Amino acid sequence: MHIGRRALGLGAAALIGAAATGWAAVADPVTAFTLDNGLEVVVIEDHRAPAVVHMLWYRVGAADEPPGLSGIAHFLEHLMFKGTDSRAPGEFSAVVESVGGRDNAFTSWDFTAYHQRVSAEYLGLMMAMEADRMANLAFTEAEWLPERDVILEERGEVVESRPGGLFNEQMRAALFQNHPYGVPIIGWRHEMEGLTGAHAMELYAAHYGPNNAVLIVAGDVTPEQVRALAEEHYGPIPPNPAIAPRIRPQEPPHLAGRRLEMTDPRVAQPYVMRQYLAPARRSGDQSEAAALTVLAELLGGSSTTSVLARALTFGEGAPALSASAWYSPVALDDTTFTLAVVPAEGVSLAEAEAAMDAAVARFMEEGVDAAQFERVQTRIRAAEIFGRDSLQARARSMGMALTSGLTVEDVEGWTAALMAVTPDEVMAAAEAVFDRRRSVTGWLKGPEDAAPAAGPRGVEPPVTEVSQ
Amino acid sequence: MHIGRRALGLGAAALIGAAATGWAAVADPVTAFTLDNGLEVVVIEDHRAPAVVHMLWYRVGAADEPPGLSGIAHFLEHLMFKGTDSRAPGEFSAVVESVGGRDNAFTSWDFTAYHQRVSAEYLGLMMAMEADRMANLAFTEAEWLPERDVILEERGEVVESRPGGLFNEQMRAALFQNHPYGVPIIGWRHEMEGLTGAHAMELYAAHYGPNNAVLIVAGDVTPEQVRALAEEHYGPIPPNPAIAPRIRPQEPPHLAGRRLEMTDPRVAQPYVMRQYLAPARRSGDQSEAAALTVLAELLGGSSTTSVLARALTFGEGAPALSASAWYSPVALDDTTFTLAVVPAEGVSLAEAEAAMDAAVARFMEEGVDAAQFERVQTRIRAAEIFGRDSLQARARSMGMALTSGLTVEDVEGWTAALMAVTPDEVMAAAEAVFDRRRSVTGWLKGPEDAAPAAGPRGVEPPVTEVSQ
Repeated sequence: MHIGRRALGLGAAALIGAAATGWAAVADPVTAFTLDNGLEVVVIEDHRAPAVVHMLWYRVGAADEPPGLSGIAHFLEHLMFKGTDSRAPGEFSAVVESVGGRDNAFTSWDFTAYHQRVSAEYLGLMMAMEADRMANLAFTEAEWLPERDVILEERGEVVESRPGGLFNEQMRAALFQNHPYGVPIIGWRHEMEGLTGAHAMELYAAHYGPNNAVLIVAGDVTPEQVRALAEEHYGPIPPNPAIAPRIRPQEPPHLAGRRLEMTDPRVAQPYVMRQYLAPARRSGDQSEAAALTVLAELLGGSSTTSVLARALTFGEGAPALSASAWYSPVALDDTTFTLAVVPAEGVSLAEAEAAMDAAVARFMEEGVDAAQFERVQTRIRAAEIFGRDSLQARARSMGMALTSGLTVEDVEGWTAALMAVTPDEVMAAAEAVFDRRRSVTGWLKGPEDAAPAAGPRGVEPPVTEVSQ
Repeated sequence: MHIGRRALGLGAAALIGAAATGWAAVADPVTAFTLDNGLEVVVIEDHRAPAVVHMLWYRVGAADEPPGLSGIAHFLEHLMFKGTDSRAPGEFSAVVESVGGRDNAFTSWDFTAYHQRVSAEYLGLMMAMEADRMANLAFTEAEWLPERDVILEERGEVVESRPGGLFNEQMRAALFQNHPYGVPIIGWRHEMEGLTGAHAMELYAAHYGPNNAVLIVAGDVTPEQVRALAEEHYGPIPPNPAIAPRIRPQEPPHLAGRRLEMTDPRVAQPYVMRQYLAPARRSGDQSEAAALTVLAELLGGSSTTSVLARALTFGEGAPALSASAWYSPVALDDTTFTLAVVPAEGVSLAEAEAAMDAAVARFMEEGVDAAQFERVQTRIRAAEIFGRDSLQARARSMGMALTSGLTVEDVEGWTAALMAVTPDEVMAAAEAVFDRRRSVTGWLKGPEDAAPAAGPRGVEPPVTEVSQ
C-alpha cells in the first residue's frame, strides 16, 4: 500500500551556515509503502550517481534472543551467507562482487540488517537473492560448525582482546537490572560455545519473514521501479505466521547507583566511565531525546570547547587528558547516556571522577552558555546535513529508526526536533537523566605496581552493533 | 520403580555431645521409588505420632520464568488454590482444615512446593486433591484478577515496605549478570501488574505434571502404603510431554566487583552487605559447599564467638553492633555467600566495611582456630540433628534438595560431608569464594541529615523463598 511521498525537512542543498530558520525544504523525496505480505518499503531517491543501496532490515536483534542463547541473532546473521536451497555457501557475496558491488551485514540489540551497494541495474538481482534467503535459508553442520569458531574469534578480537571492550560489557551488565540490553550483542562466550545451527534456524523461523522486515532502497531509482521489483521478488513470500509482538522485559525502578572497578594488566590508560539509563527517541515525541543529543554534544562532544573538555583538559595542572559524552538516541527501549574521563598523569581515578562530577555540577548550576549552544546547534545541523549526503548513511538511519519503534515521519522530523531544542529543555533533560540511582560508575585500571602497559590508549566508546 | 530403602547416616537417636565419629547409624528409613508416569516418591518413615506431612514439589520456580513475566511461578502457586474442574475455589484448604490439618505452599527460584500436615488416615484424601490440581486446575478471571492484587499486596508487605527487602533485590540484580537468580521471586512490580491467568496456565502447561514433580511423604506410614495410595491417586495422570530439561543462562566470568549505595528515609539502622557468587551443593561432590557452610558459621554464624562478632562487636569502641554471614548451599546454579555488618553509633559505613575487610583478612592469614572449629562442628551437627527431629523440616530439606539437582544419596550424605570438612578445606573454600570481582558490596543508608527513622532495625537477611 502506498503511504505517500514526502519531502524531507532538510536536504543536501541546505548548507552549513544557513540560518537556523532558513534551511531548504526541498530534498530527495522519500516514499514509503507496504506490500500485501507486510513488507515495509522505503525508497530514498537520489539520482546523482547510477548506484543503489539495497538494505533489508529485520525487527529482531540480540535483545530478542531466548535467555541462554546470547549471540544467536548475530550467529544467524553470519549463517545467512551460507546458502539457500538453490544457492551455495558464499555464492551471495560472490555474485555481489562479480557485478562490482559490496555487501555486508550487522546486528544490534534491536535489529539485524543486510545490505549491498551495486549499480542500479542490479537492484532486481539483489532483491532476488535477498528474498531467496529470507524464505529458503539452508545450511549443513559442515557450514555452521566452523562459523561458530568464526564468531568466537570475532568475540576474541572485538571484545576480549580489548580491556575497554570487556569493561563496557561489565558496565552494561551492571546498568541493566532486567532488560536484555545488559547482555552483549556478540554473546557471552560460554553461551556462544553452545550455539548450534538448529538454534539459529529457530530464531530464523520465529522472526524472519516479510511481515517483520523493512526494505530500504536508496539511490538512482524511482518508487515505481522499486515497487515493481519488490512485488516481483519479495511479493510472493507469504507472511510468517510466527511473528509476534516484540515484548521486552523492562527495567524496574533503580534504587541504588552502582559502581565497579575492573583491573586488567593490559590497560595502558585508566579511565572513569559513568553510564546513565536514558530515554530513547519516542515516536511522535522526540523532544527529550533531541535535548539529550544536544546535551551530549555540549558536555563532551567532538569539539574541544565542550563543557567537560574546557573544565578538565585545559591549562597547567588540568586533571584530565580527555573527557567525552555519548548518547545513543535510537533504541526500542531505554538506552544509555555516557560520560568518560581519562585522568592526566599523576591524577587518580578518584580525583578525575570528582573533577568530572564538579564540572557537571557547575554546568547544572550555571546552565547553558548561549554562544556555545549556538555553536553546538550549528555543528549538529552540519552533521545531519553531511549525514544526508551519503546514500548509505541515509538508508542506514532510516532502517535503524524503523526497526527501533520510529516512523518515517519521526526520521523526517528529527533534524527539526534537534533544531527546536531550547537551553531550558537541555537543562530539564540533564536534570532528569543525571540520577545517580539509575547509573553505574566504572573505573578501568591497569596493574597497580607496574609500568603502564603498551596496550591501546583512550576510551573504548560504547558500541551498539557488531558488523560481520 | 523401587529404588531401595536406605538407612540415613544420622538419626534422632544421635544426640548432641556424641563424639564426631560416634553418631548412630540407625535412623528413620528413607525409601525412594518412581511411578511409571515419572513421579518421584520419597517416604520418610517416622512412627512417633499418627501424623503425616504430604508435600508435592515441582521442578519449576522463579528462575524458570519467561523473561518479562517475573512473579508468574508464585502467581501460579496462589492460583493452585482456586479450584479445579471438580473443586471450587478455596475448597482445597477448607477440606484440609475440616480434617484438622494445615496446608500451605511456597515458591523459590528453583521449586514450587505444596504441603499439608494431617492425620495419617487422610493421606489418601490429600493425594486425591493434590493429584486433581496437578492435572485439572481451572479458574476464571473472577478468580485470577483479584488474586493478582493479592500478590501485589504481598510484594508491598514483603519487599517494598522494608528498605532491607528492596536493598536485597538491588544487591541480587547487581550480583547476577546473566542468571535469572537476579530477578526477585515475587516479581518486579511493573511485570506483576501485567500477569494474567493465561500466563499462569502457560507455566502450568509447560512445567506441571508427574514427570516434573517429587512427592515427599513423611510420618506414620509405610512405603507400601504410600506406594499403593500414590499409584491410586497420582498413577493415572499421564506424563506431561511438554516437560523439557531445565536450561538456565549461566554467569559469564565476573571481571569487576560492584558496589552500590541505596538511601531510604525509612532506614533506622544503616548497614554494609557484601555478597559473593558461590558454588552450591553439587550432586556427588558436596565437599566445597560443606566447607562454605562451616565457613559461614565460623565467620558470622549464630554464636557470639564467631570470627566477625569477636573482631567487630566486643569491647569498648567496637566498630559494629552485629556481624553476620549466610550461605545458601541448596540451589540448582551458583548461589550466594553473604557478609553483613551493622556499624556502632558514630561509626561510618566506610569504617565498618574496612573493619569487616580487615577482620576477614586477618582470618585468612591466621586460619581456623582449632577450638572454635570444634565448637562449630558440634553446633552444626546439633542443628542437623534437631532439624531431623521435625517431620516438616526433614520433608522440606529432602524436597528442596531433589528439586535443586541433588539426590537422596546427597541428602543422606550431607551431614557426613559437613563432619568431614577440615580446616584446610575451609580456608581453600574461603580463598576461592572471596574474590571481589565476583561480588557486590552494598551500603543501605538512612537520610543524611535527619534523626534515625523509627523503622525496623537489624539486617534483612537474604531470603530464598516466598511463602503464600
